[in-house]
Amino acid sequence: MVVSLNEPLDMHLHLRDAGMLDIVAPLSAETFSGALVMPNLVPPVTTKEALLSYRKRILDAVGESTFMPYMTLFFKSDYSAGFLEAVKDDILAIKLYPAGITTNSEGGVSGFDLKELAPVLDAMSGLGIPLCVHGETGGFVMDREAEFIPIYEKLAKNFPDLKIIMEHITTKEAVEALKRFENLYATITLHHLYITLDDVAGGLLQPHLFCKPIAKRPEDREALLDAALKADPKVMFGSDSAPHPKDAKEAPGCAAGVFTAPIALQALVQLFEKHDALDRLQSFVSDNAKRIYGINPPEKRVILENSPYLVPDIYEGTVVPMFAGRTLEWRVVSAG
Amino acid sequence: MVVSLNEPLDMHLHLRDAGMLDIVAPLSAETFSGALVMPNLVPPVTTKEALLSYRKRILDAVGESTFMPYMTLFFKSDYSAGFLEAVKDDILAIKLYPAGITTNSEGGVSGFDLKELAPVLDAMSGLGIPLCVHGETGGFVMDREAEFIPIYEKLAKNFPDLKIIMEHITTKEAVEALKRFENLYATITLHHLYITLDDVAGGLLQPHLFCKPIAKRPEDREALLDAALKADPKVMFGSDSAPHPKDAKEAPGCAAGVFTAPIALQALVQLFEKHDALDRLQSFVSDNAKRIYGINPPEKRVILENSPYLVPDIYEGTVVPMFAGRTLEWRVVSAG
Repeated sequence: MVVSLNEPLDMHLHLRDAGMLDIVAPLSAETFSGALVMPNLVPPVTTKEALLSYRKRILDAVGESTFMPYMTLFFKSDYSAGFLEAVKDDILAIKLYPAGITTNSEGGVSGFDLKELAPVLDAMSGLGIPLCVHGETGGFVMDREAEFIPIYEKLAKNFPDLKIIMEHITTKEAVEALKRFENLYATITLHHLYITLDDVAGGLLQPHLFCKPIAKRPEDREALLDAALKADPKVMFGSDSAPHPKDAKEAPGCAAGVFTAPIALQALVQLFEKHDALDRLQSFVSDNAKRIYGINPPEKRVILENSPYLVPDIYEGTVVPMFAGRTLEWRVVSAG
Repeated sequence: MVVSLNEPLDMHLHLRDAGMLDIVAPLSAETFSGALVMPNLVPPVTTKEALLSYRKRILDAVGESTFMPYMTLFFKSDYSAGFLEAVKDDILAIKLYPAGITTNSEGGVSGFDLKELAPVLDAMSGLGIPLCVHGETGGFVMDREAEFIPIYEKLAKNFPDLKIIMEHITTKEAVEALKRFENLYATITLHHLYITLDDVAGGLLQPHLFCKPIAKRPEDREALLDAALKADPKVMFGSDSAPHPKDAKEAPGCAAGVFTAPIALQALVQLFEKHDALDRLQSFVSDNAKRIYGINPPEKRVILENSPYLVPDIYEGTVVPMFAGRTLEWRVVSAG
């Protein structure tokens, strides 16, 4: 049995920089036509110069592969309208992080004072630049996303012309919120379709499955799965693939992030097939994103076949993927 | 300022065996007058011979210190009344584990069929042997204890003359359940008075705070704190101090358990002082247990003073304690 996907898109991807970028960018480029690249470097990407330079480093790392890095800026409330106008053709979106909520987000937003945010959000609305949001409060880890939903709603209501993407949603509350505002969209990761907190800490502790937002309850996973499997037109695939060196993941104080980019399509096909929803995968993994963002990514057809695929234990001796050392039921046989 | 505690008791302690026993038993014996020793060795303690032999190994490890190891058997539903009669003077309680729920519990109880359990529980009631229970189902990690409460209630109702101790409770539901049956009691650990899931996985991942039952929500911790600080007559201190080698705690697939025995009294005094409840600590850490179990432990007075105590990073190069490398506000100045 064979599955064919056209222009698969990963609408939430961490490519990092330097040595890690050189390892992970080619892996995404192997099977994806393009990806929305997150700007939380150290320092974060906040200038046109940094943006173009990072884009060039990504393309250098990717080499000959067909792969479009859709770029993002790190949200700052003091961007001028002139600056946004000047960068609008170089970016696909701006990513907002609450301060300190995840890896390299220290320079993010504290409080969500509409007066403070309005000039930039109004300018973005006018220029048609979508806002991607890491929506978590600083509250109890299982409640952070649900607690953030009133902020999403405040933004959606006050900026009706702004496309707002709730990134890597993990709760049934977030799935419900999507229905209440026309201008709210969401990305869903691979790992949140597969795991709950039980997989992270229900048996032995599994640092390679530790991420932010943390995997939630079984009923939350069910709600995400329902939205993804029917390819709800407001949701898109975004892996939030977030590589950290093996040593950093396996030491106490392990950083948050699951590395899924190179195995994401294989695992998605497996999941959608299991739920008899293969006919919706093209929408979830590409068409919805094309429509929501209005993009036309480079042509790439990826063919997968139903044949055992042993996931590597580690890539370049550095990064451990989800399903490391385990066998998936689907492998990529060609991409291009 | 000085605090004096008489006969501190740790009513839930894992001393392990062999090399680990030799490291940890003297540390408990330094500050505790006695402890209820858990039987989940490999293989578990299920015979009189194993019991007496383990007790001797503990006493050998403790050496000259005054320390009473109160012994437990690993619950089996096929113990005969004659066997229980023969061991009753050698044990203080029998510990029931649901099969596979925590470290070395594979031989525990599957299902809670009263018909199967009744012969042993009736014999225990008649002989006055309390039943200690690790009360978790195999459900979602945050729900396991609350889901087990109907089983506690079934046991409490059907065996009204059996003292049942809900071990290491972690939820407000368990605190509530205590009030509903006269024959239900509970132990509370140090770490569940200090931490929630936020401390384990809310920031970076902290394997040394990963335990079973997992630390729960802030409102759960508040309920435990309320019961401990007022020294509710049905609750006792039981550390559930559970040493694992540093390597095992810091690798992927980290085992569950927090090692608190050597710093427990210092941290309890700090906590009770902070909440202006020092006058209840003697009851929580000794008197309640004496009364509930009807024991008369060897005399030991422990004096602590309000003076900085730097917790070791590691004991004997092997076991990392809670608060490793941090400074507590109280130190033990004498014990004997």
